[in-house]
Amino acid sequence: MSEQEPNQKYREMSEVDYRLKCDLRVKEQKYYLGKIQDSGLKPMERFLAYCPNPSLNMKRGVTFAHMDLEGIAGAISEGKPWAVVSGLNPSGPLHFGHKVIFDELLWMQQQGADVFIPLTNDESYVVGKSKSLAESRRIAYDDVIPSIIAMGFDSNKTKIFVDSDYADIYNVAMDLSKYVTLNKVFKVFGLDKEDDEIDRNPGTLFYRAAVQVAQILLPQYPEFGGPKPTIVPVGIDQHPYILLARDMAEKKGFIPPSELVMKFLFGMDGKGKMSASRPGSAVFLTDSPEKAEKTIKASYTGGVTLRDFQIAHGGIPEICPVGCLREWHFENDRHVSERCSSGKLLCGDDKRETIEMVKNYLRDHQEKREEARKRIDKFILKTPIRSIFEE
Amino acid sequence: MSEQEPNQKYREMSEVDYRLKCDLRVKEQKYYLGKIQDSGLKPMERFLAYCPNPSLNMKRGVTFAHMDLEGIAGAISEGKPWAVVSGLNPSGPLHFGHKVIFDELLWMQQQGADVFIPLTNDESYVVGKSKSLAESRRIAYDDVIPSIIAMGFDSNKTKIFVDSDYADIYNVAMDLSKYVTLNKVFKVFGLDKEDDEIDRNPGTLFYRAAVQVAQILLPQYPEFGGPKPTIVPVGIDQHPYILLARDMAEKKGFIPPSELVMKFLFGMDGKGKMSASRPGSAVFLTDSPEKAEKTIKASYTGGVTLRDFQIAHGGIPEICPVGCLREWHFENDRHVSERCSSGKLLCGDDKRETIEMVKNYLRDHQEKREEARKRIDKFILKTPIRSIFEE
Repeated sequence: MSEQEPNQKYREMSEVDYRLKCDLRVKEQKYYLGKIQDSGLKPMERFLAYCPNPSLNMKRGVTFAHMDLEGIAGAISEGKPWAVVSGLNPSGPLHFGHKVIFDELLWMQQQGADVFIPLTNDESYVVGKSKSLAESRRIAYDDVIPSIIAMGFDSNKTKIFVDSDYADIYNVAMDLSKYVTLNKVFKVFGLDKEDDEIDRNPGTLFYRAAVQVAQILLPQYPEFGGPKPTIVPVGIDQHPYILLARDMAEKKGFIPPSELVMKFLFGMDGKGKMSASRPGSAVFLTDSPEKAEKTIKASYTGGVTLRDFQIAHGGIPEICPVGCLREWHFENDRHVSERCSSGKLLCGDDKRETIEMVKNYLRDHQEKREEARKRIDKFILKTPIRSIFEE
Repeated sequence: MSEQEPNQKYREMSEVDYRLKCDLRVKEQKYYLGKIQDSGLKPMERFLAYCPNPSLNMKRGVTFAHMDLEGIAGAISEGKPWAVVSGLNPSGPLHFGHKVIFDELLWMQQQGADVFIPLTNDESYVVGKSKSLAESRRIAYDDVIPSIIAMGFDSNKTKIFVDSDYADIYNVAMDLSKYVTLNKVFKVFGLDKEDDEIDRNPGTLFYRAAVQVAQILLPQYPEFGGPKPTIVPVGIDQHPYILLARDMAEKKGFIPPSELVMKFLFGMDGKGKMSASRPGSAVFLTDSPEKAEKTIKASYTGGVTLRDFQIAHGGIPEICPVGCLREWHFENDRHVSERCSSGKLLCGDDKRETIEMVKNYLRDHQEKREEARKRIDKFILKTPIRSIFEE
């Protein structure tokens, strides 16, 4: 076997890498297009053509599909009340993947929405993401809520609640549970007899079938002004919940909630979406600037080994965790992607610049987080739900 | 065909009727004995031999079986705290069938028990016994609670709660839901794919699997002094709940609750247990004395048509709604049954005497009910359950 020139070896490696990443980009696009087709969702393009003021995430293609967004646009143009609901199950500090959704919520608040943010510590517990209701409740108050407030939400138009502390949500869930059957839940979530016991735990099923739907339909109860257009920004994995909520809303005489589907931010390890469950995949909003720097430095990218090759062919920003982290959070347009794909911006520089942006953001965010702790009470929803007891 | 003497015809009718009622008595005995054998319960006899102070219902055989009653007896003799839990789903006023259970609770309170009475208006709603949470909640406060208080419970040792108004019970239910699987629930309640949708409604299942168990185990939470012997007097149809609660208690580190099984009071129509769902079967505690008189006058009995025949052979008091109503509620011993089965007490006299007793009871009860309305708040459990949020 002949010995290759080192340069030739790296060239071949880069070619393989480049083709692999191009394939990944196609696979990624197909994944989301496929989801649109399978789910009866609409792509954003047509809506955007008529939308005078789309969010950055919409322009970037991060918000890529919707259901009934027209209803929300109608409410905005007529100056009528509307609401947005989106939360998460607290099991650790927020990371930049979560921030994508909260950015969209913040934009909606600026467009006039009442923002409801359920922190589902009961879900964390029943699905096994935390060892107790106590642990997930503490995480909600200590880690999650300060970060949400620090992002700039308006306390007059933001209602945050932790399920355990807003037990009225269970009365709403019981009220709604009659509008669904277990068979329907099994079908919507694609469960069957062979599924994990955890999916078939009575608490998990009740959560999925009724508590989550109660959260989505809560803004339409009389305590919050009655039926109104409501939108739920979600990752595509949450789509079944929306279908269930739409079905139950109709039976209850509410307006079926609209849905906005957002892409997942890539994990820095290049192995899927950013997730707290894979160390090294996430940059947390609570990370020290030094830790964030280390994570981003070690990150997978959309580039290749050989500098010349990348200058000639460009990188693949669409699948690059660093490029997406930067563009989704710190840029107003696509110029970074363009510079990358045209070979003008190389990974080292991109990482260096992104690290600076992230470090600055974290310093600022963490200062605001500490200040936000004092204002938690202003954001907590306390309105008792009594209308279901009126005959 | 020869024309029979009228007397001869009635004699034959009476013979048929008598044999039928004797058979019914055997069937009834076999039913309860069979239940004891199938359920792993113990008959009361052996316990009673050592019990210095049994309740009237125990002496009468109305309380006919138990599980782990020894644990309660131990707590009593050692002067340690113990609790009793029994409630019902509010869907209408109480009748004398309900009173049997509350009499036993009252006796237990006199023996030192802390009494917990959950009024499961969520259950009424999800199983379809009331059209809304609102309706069943109203019934709880307007109809059920005043009657319970009027029976003589001590507000210092009685904790009544309506599920909707004590939503902390759902936190307890969520906490406990991890100690059971859906497969286990299906198995315990004998449900399968073919069952009624109502049994497979997520709210109903969550109620059965977790909320009901939360109520049974509530006295063992730190807010009420931690693990302690607890007993649940029930009708035999509630046995699966106890099995589930015992299983989950063990996993949670609680003491598996004891069970006391009571017979059902006969409906006045002779068609099964006294039930609000069969008009004419029940004498309600809210009935006017005149209405009660009418119901009892029209009642099925354990006697036969022909007076002479009954004097000669006696009646069958064990299956007589009038005899049981009287003996279970107004007598201290079995002398009425003995007079009936020996032919000394005939149905007409028995009805007349019972009517007087019931009318007197109702007048007194209804007066106390009105007075009790003012004291409802003293009985309502308000203790927040925070211990599940301590790490």
